[in-house]
Amino acid sequence: MGDKERFKELVREIGITNNVVSTLEWDMRVCLPPKASAYRAETMGYLSAKLYELKTASELIELANKLASAGDIDPVTAAMSKKIIKDNKRLTEIPAKLYSEYTEHSFKTELLWQVARAKNDYDMLKKDLEREFELKRQIAESHGFIDNPMDGLVGESDDQINTALLDDIFGEIKPFVQSLLEKINQSGIKRDKSRIFGKYPFDKQREFCTRMIAEAGYDLEAGRLDESAHPFSFPNDKTDIRMTTRYFEENFTSAVTSSMHEMGHSIYGQNHADELRHTTLDCAPSGGWDEGQSRFFENIIGRSRQFWTYFLPIAKTYFDGLDEMTIDDFYYSLNAVNISPLRLSSDELTYNLHIIIRYELEKLIFAKQINFNDLPSAWNDKYMEYLGIIPKNDAEGILQDMHWASGYIGSYQNYVIGNCYDGHLLNKMRQDIPDMYDQVAAGKFGEIFNWQVKNVHVHGSLYSPAELLERVTGESLSPKHYLDYIGNKFSEVYKLN
Amino acid sequence: MGDKERFKELVREIGITNNVVSTLEWDMRVCLPPKASAYRAETMGYLSAKLYELKTASELIELANKLASAGDIDPVTAAMSKKIIKDNKRLTEIPAKLYSEYTEHSFKTELLWQVARAKNDYDMLKKDLEREFELKRQIAESHGFIDNPMDGLVGESDDQINTALLDDIFGEIKPFVQSLLEKINQSGIKRDKSRIFGKYPFDKQREFCTRMIAEAGYDLEAGRLDESAHPFSFPNDKTDIRMTTRYFEENFTSAVTSSMHEMGHSIYGQNHADELRHTTLDCAPSGGWDEGQSRFFENIIGRSRQFWTYFLPIAKTYFDGLDEMTIDDFYYSLNAVNISPLRLSSDELTYNLHIIIRYELEKLIFAKQINFNDLPSAWNDKYMEYLGIIPKNDAEGILQDMHWASGYIGSYQNYVIGNCYDGHLLNKMRQDIPDMYDQVAAGKFGEIFNWQVKNVHVHGSLYSPAELLERVTGESLSPKHYLDYIGNKFSEVYKLN
Repeated sequence: MGDKERFKELVREIGITNNVVSTLEWDMRVCLPPKASAYRAETMGYLSAKLYELKTASELIELANKLASAGDIDPVTAAMSKKIIKDNKRLTEIPAKLYSEYTEHSFKTELLWQVARAKNDYDMLKKDLEREFELKRQIAESHGFIDNPMDGLVGESDDQINTALLDDIFGEIKPFVQSLLEKINQSGIKRDKSRIFGKYPFDKQREFCTRMIAEAGYDLEAGRLDESAHPFSFPNDKTDIRMTTRYFEENFTSAVTSSMHEMGHSIYGQNHADELRHTTLDCAPSGGWDEGQSRFFENIIGRSRQFWTYFLPIAKTYFDGLDEMTIDDFYYSLNAVNISPLRLSSDELTYNLHIIIRYELEKLIFAKQINFNDLPSAWNDKYMEYLGIIPKNDAEGILQDMHWASGYIGSYQNYVIGNCYDGHLLNKMRQDIPDMYDQVAAGKFGEIFNWQVKNVHVHGSLYSPAELLERVTGESLSPKHYLDYIGNKFSEVYKLN
Repeated sequence: MGDKERFKELVREIGITNNVVSTLEWDMRVCLPPKASAYRAETMGYLSAKLYELKTASELIELANKLASAGDIDPVTAAMSKKIIKDNKRLTEIPAKLYSEYTEHSFKTELLWQVARAKNDYDMLKKDLEREFELKRQIAESHGFIDNPMDGLVGESDDQINTALLDDIFGEIKPFVQSLLEKINQSGIKRDKSRIFGKYPFDKQREFCTRMIAEAGYDLEAGRLDESAHPFSFPNDKTDIRMTTRYFEENFTSAVTSSMHEMGHSIYGQNHADELRHTTLDCAPSGGWDEGQSRFFENIIGRSRQFWTYFLPIAKTYFDGLDEMTIDDFYYSLNAVNISPLRLSSDELTYNLHIIIRYELEKLIFAKQINFNDLPSAWNDKYMEYLGIIPKNDAEGILQDMHWASGYIGSYQNYVIGNCYDGHLLNKMRQDIPDMYDQVAAGKFGEIFNWQVKNVHVHGSLYSPAELLERVTGESLSPKHYLDYIGNKFSEVYKLN
């Protein structure tokens, strides 16, 4: 067996094991019997240790180095070698003991968070949450970011991202959103989210969401739509990309937007090039790119007037109580600015502030300018400052998201970076497909879908985040197009001009 | 780390990997998107190769040998060492190339069988089925059974079983059943299976079956009841033993009997001793014992008059159309002798003949006294000879079962050996719990359940099949008690005395 063949074989083992882990995670969220959680945690720990062994095996790294320096290598093998070398470096920088403590602690803390949120009891989580941040700090420091450990976290999947860049980008977005909010407040125009509220049977919502994602491009024969407490899309081989959503009886658009969001992740996974199967390049090049795809389909398509021009008449055949609803009613209600303490209940515009609040708190924690006793009130102060609202308790304040408890620390920014990528993509797509929104209004998603497949999905992680953006748009990361988009949209919704 | 601790660690890896495979098999039967089957096959092949590596690792075998010959070892470690040594011997006797060809071929042939059965086309399966038998012959021969390869297969999980013993046991059962059938025919008494037929909504059947298995002892918090084309129970850690059933609208007792059957397997798995967790002793000591538990709950409990004395009134609250049904009507209808070409539609009595037919055909194949062109007609001839019926096509004849296509060759006898174990267990249980059937009639399953847990379930594979029988009953394997049971039962159903 040649070096390249042996290398591919070893990489395939990592790919298969990754996908086994992902399938078991799906199972954990959707199917696992209650008493089985401890055993499943143990299984995940075992597989995670196996993955560590596979990813850091000396044979693999030697082959990767050999192939990376070979002149005449194909682009997939070249990218694969670089990724293996980089992953190995990051993994082996982390002491094994720290890595396994972190893995175990995250799993335990996520479970504890579920209880703490249900009981609205921050104190029961506090110690473990602090430890979670401490372990993450140690991980970041083991990568060599002594000055600002946040840089070791926010740049995890994207070398170009660091706190300085994020400060710049968020420094543009925050005042823009705040000033827009002020104009909206002064406009006197009221848009009411609850116009859409009604009684929408779960089975009808299931049918509607299934039809919607299938029409928008999700391949139900290479995936499934199920339910879980938190909507997810699960990475795997392109033939098996599963997603979940959740249904609320009074508002079917909640399941619609979360389904469109997860569908964005999922069609990305279903459409990587065949040559990336059996590698670990069959994923987005960064969290920002992944969130970009999900938010493109959730917001730019799924919250557009044209999307509902097509889908509102269809929704009326599924649900009672929408007969009198005009497209204006519906569109303005769906896009009503909703100042909420809850990130997941927020609108497209204020969502950015929810993320920026979390990012700023992470920075304060890593700068040791705040301690964990004061974290809930710091959280509430930020909500008061940016959104003029105070969560009525910690369950709808600091306990609302599982991210920190699960170890997703230094990753919230991906949602807003994803918005920025979407700005770039939308700008380019409108040049390439000038009538794109007319197509959406006619229920024709094929050309838009194919554009994303051809320009983004097929490439997986073959290019770095910055290279991919350059290839598709010729540009480098900036919030400009996104702010143009969001500014225009909400100016129209609130008749600001 | 001491030898024993290291040994336990290595065994735990096998246990976890086994359970990952089992969870993925459950997923394959219940959840897998259609396009994902090829990738899943590849994943299963990979994990099966990993299991082979783990089970035959020289470090493990050396430790097992060392511990097996140590004097002062605890019973679990002693049994574990013996099992590891035996499994290794069997696995390494098989050439690696043969093993992987067999694994791949079985998977492929099971998929082909699905198509062949749907199309009623034996010819499309014939060549691969013949190859499957040939590979099984080579596997059996690699174990050293040159004279009669069948002995290398039927004794797979139970050293005491060989074709000579099976010929003896079946040599008693076959004429007994045949003579009973003749008396039933001559009795003039008619029992009609279709008396129960009606229209039973699926959701009501689901609710009823769930309630029934929960009352009978299945822990729904450490398992799940789902649906699949073929009912299964999936081995795993005791906290996660899942089962499936299937529903037919016209006859709810089909789902009832298959649920009770799979529940029998599942409660076995849920009740192994805690000390057997993380070993590979947390399973039945043989296929016969496993089928014994499933058939005990399906037949000896689930098809008893007393079971329905309790559950018929409950069933009437779930289903319309049963109001006029008396317990006599119901019990006799449920136990009507049903001469059918289909094993899974047969009654408790003729079921034995379905199995014996398959066993006899396997023997003919291994003796090269039959070729695969003639197999369907040989199948049909046996059905004519033993049951007086000819399948109207191969789909309800030789193609009805997936067993042979999937590589379950030389294993059908387990169902009848399971019946024999049940005879022994019932005989002993009636001594220990004289009013056991009165308890069933009152819906009290606790004492029977606990008897099985204490005498059978907790032991897992700690004892050999013969040792376990000896411990529980002081007897050695014989069909006597079973024939007493089945003779008495059907004599009463058909009023033969």
